[in-house]
Amino acid sequence: MMRGIAGLAAVGAVWGGMNTEPNPTASDLTASYPVVRLMPKGDARAIRHGYPWVYANELVTDRRTKGLTPGALAVLEDANRVPLGLVTVNPVSKIICRMIDRDPEAVIDTAWFAAKLARALAHRARIYDQPFYRLVHAEADGLPGVVIDRFGDVAVVQPNAAWADALIGPLTDALVQVTGVTTVILNGTGRARSLEGLDDRTDVIRGTAPTAPIAVPMNGATYMADVMGGQKTGLFFDQRPNHAFAATLAKDARVLDMFSHVGGFGLAALAAGAASVLAVDGSEPALALADQGAAAMGVGDRFTTRRGDAFEVLEALAAEGATFDLVVCDPPAFAPGKASLEAGLRAYERVARLAAGLVAEDGYLMLCSCSHAADLTRFRNASARGIGRAGRRSQVIQTGFAGPDHPLLPHLAESGYLKVVTFRL
Amino acid sequence: MMRGIAGLAAVGAVWGGMNTEPNPTASDLTASYPVVRLMPKGDARAIRHGYPWVYANELVTDRRTKGLTPGALAVLEDANRVPLGLVTVNPVSKIICRMIDRDPEAVIDTAWFAAKLARALAHRARIYDQPFYRLVHAEADGLPGVVIDRFGDVAVVQPNAAWADALIGPLTDALVQVTGVTTVILNGTGRARSLEGLDDRTDVIRGTAPTAPIAVPMNGATYMADVMGGQKTGLFFDQRPNHAFAATLAKDARVLDMFSHVGGFGLAALAAGAASVLAVDGSEPALALADQGAAAMGVGDRFTTRRGDAFEVLEALAAEGATFDLVVCDPPAFAPGKASLEAGLRAYERVARLAAGLVAEDGYLMLCSCSHAADLTRFRNASARGIGRAGRRSQVIQTGFAGPDHPLLPHLAESGYLKVVTFRL
Repeated sequence: MMRGIAGLAAVGAVWGGMNTEPNPTASDLTASYPVVRLMPKGDARAIRHGYPWVYANELVTDRRTKGLTPGALAVLEDANRVPLGLVTVNPVSKIICRMIDRDPEAVIDTAWFAAKLARALAHRARIYDQPFYRLVHAEADGLPGVVIDRFGDVAVVQPNAAWADALIGPLTDALVQVTGVTTVILNGTGRARSLEGLDDRTDVIRGTAPTAPIAVPMNGATYMADVMGGQKTGLFFDQRPNHAFAATLAKDARVLDMFSHVGGFGLAALAAGAASVLAVDGSEPALALADQGAAAMGVGDRFTTRRGDAFEVLEALAAEGATFDLVVCDPPAFAPGKASLEAGLRAYERVARLAAGLVAEDGYLMLCSCSHAADLTRFRNASARGIGRAGRRSQVIQTGFAGPDHPLLPHLAESGYLKVVTFRL
Repeated sequence: MMRGIAGLAAVGAVWGGMNTEPNPTASDLTASYPVVRLMPKGDARAIRHGYPWVYANELVTDRRTKGLTPGALAVLEDANRVPLGLVTVNPVSKIICRMIDRDPEAVIDTAWFAAKLARALAHRARIYDQPFYRLVHAEADGLPGVVIDRFGDVAVVQPNAAWADALIGPLTDALVQVTGVTTVILNGTGRARSLEGLDDRTDVIRGTAPTAPIAVPMNGATYMADVMGGQKTGLFFDQRPNHAFAATLAKDARVLDMFSHVGGFGLAALAAGAASVLAVDGSEPALALADQGAAAMGVGDRFTTRRGDAFEVLEALAAEGATFDLVVCDPPAFAPGKASLEAGLRAYERVARLAAGLVAEDGYLMLCSCSHAADLTRFRNASARGIGRAGRRSQVIQTGFAGPDHPLLPHLAESGYLKVVTFRL
């Protein structure tokens, strides 16, 4: 346990953390973590069964708990003072505790991180031939709030919870040790960080920053990932199985890839023999990367990009009388939270309506949602409504989610954010 | 329209149908279908938006409607006598009307069937390299209650609604014409038939019965399908993408395939390099076909079968101390209807508990449900509970459904029966 606390203190010194726990002595092991306690109404049973979070209204938040440094480690006890495990506490977050280890005496050091990472790596190495994947998907991989995407020798870490921000030192050491990556980039730009009271920052914390986009092989296509300046970690690995499904529909097809980012669906379709792909996005840099990917694949002659507002482009294409055999729409989250649900569903319906009008008879329409708040049924219904309003009838031929490098805890599986429904019109 | 009615009468004569509609004269076209009418409480709006069924309590069931031959064609009107389309009526079924065509004057003849089949075929031919798939998946393919599986030159038809039983003649003619199959087998053994008041029967209605099991290539494996004597149509095409996902986990793995039928998951795992597969099923003929498939693949040395009650075998394997890197359980529907939901969920929990105990550390557990009544959330929760009761913790790494040759109407998409959840333990 000394190593854990010492690690935290050391990291605090380097990374501006503010851990103020006293270093424990060897004779003081069990007292070395502060204790936080569930209120009687807190659901200790759910936590014993693996639920990973405690909400602020379930915890006794006395002055001592409120005074804990965001990201501090503590022992969580139930209302009867029985230890439930080791948690991190963030008094400024609605998720006030995240379970770190069922062992209340666990030492959170480089070896602890290495064990978690080795287990996560074994799963990805089994599934994927090449080292391009989401290596760590937060809670389900035992590292609450931590996201790590791997691009060969480069790893991009998103420490979206205060504890991981504070312990980035031993985490990075373990990451290099377990995976052999030579460059580690800290990407601290997610919305989740502000909920944790963390600042935005992006740093190269090990090795040197890549000077060019990284070529990522996936589903037979080549994607160009800008791990320093791109959206999120530079590439959306979550859509991999859905890209692959789109590819099965794409042979000889005219494809429209709306909200294309770096060309995820479009380049996979070209790899599978699409006749032509039009990629539409609002971001010029993203489209430039898509063009580079198409060039690297030698399919630039079948690939066109168009920058613009998606709704405007959809209407313009309709006015031009364009039709496609496969249309894919992968918009940003229209309904990230409950407050935006109704407006978000209307936006999904509108996308479906406009896109359906561009689909040839017997063609395919893949509609994606990465909105937490819009569950599969709501999203599918909004989409079907939009298709109906376009005067089209449809079959649902496939429903997909994020790939297997994005595991979920069973207790949080309802919250799987990514849904993809493929219709035939 | 004369052709439609004439076809029905002719089929009735051949197939024991009891159609008693008078033949229309040329001057009597609009009067040639009887009329049935929604009650004011019937949901005409849903039907206009594509909902395909009318329940018995929504229809005016006067003596004339009650006297219609099961499977008779009729024009459905709303409560204001506005036509909604052409339906089939079965006065003995809870689903009293099924929408056949939005055009109330549609002629249901060989050409009509051929158009539906051609559209269904185009979709499958786009997705699959070889002619082995579900060609028609009932309502979503525009042929309510009709299931057709294709095994190369052989098609197996399940006419699970009275209208299709009566019109099997023009349906078969169209099937041969559109696909070029040389043998058509009528498999009339489904539970759905008894709900429609239809007898069990299995006949070769075109060509000659195959004298040996048909070798079916799928996911790199070879399956042996007994289209005359096997379960359902001889092979479960619906699991194809889930077999493929199991294969991605299977390299060098020790695999247990519970409720294996003809070896769906196990043979796909062997094709992907599994170290060994034990297939367990209650049916000796199914296991013999699995053995034949393994022999055809040249992997018989890595394939073992064990006949027995699944629960007893799971307990026996635990007593033997057996462990596996991948365990797949694909049981029969434990909760086919609402009445069996609670008992069914307990059975799924029990399967999960017993199977989890056999999974090696960091191994995988794929649990399948083909129960209509157990939705994804209930099934996943029952499974997670079982895993927890086995003292194991888990991640959900994948959720799968039936493959894209099993389309659904958006209005019935909630009822997708097959769910597969893959856990890592």
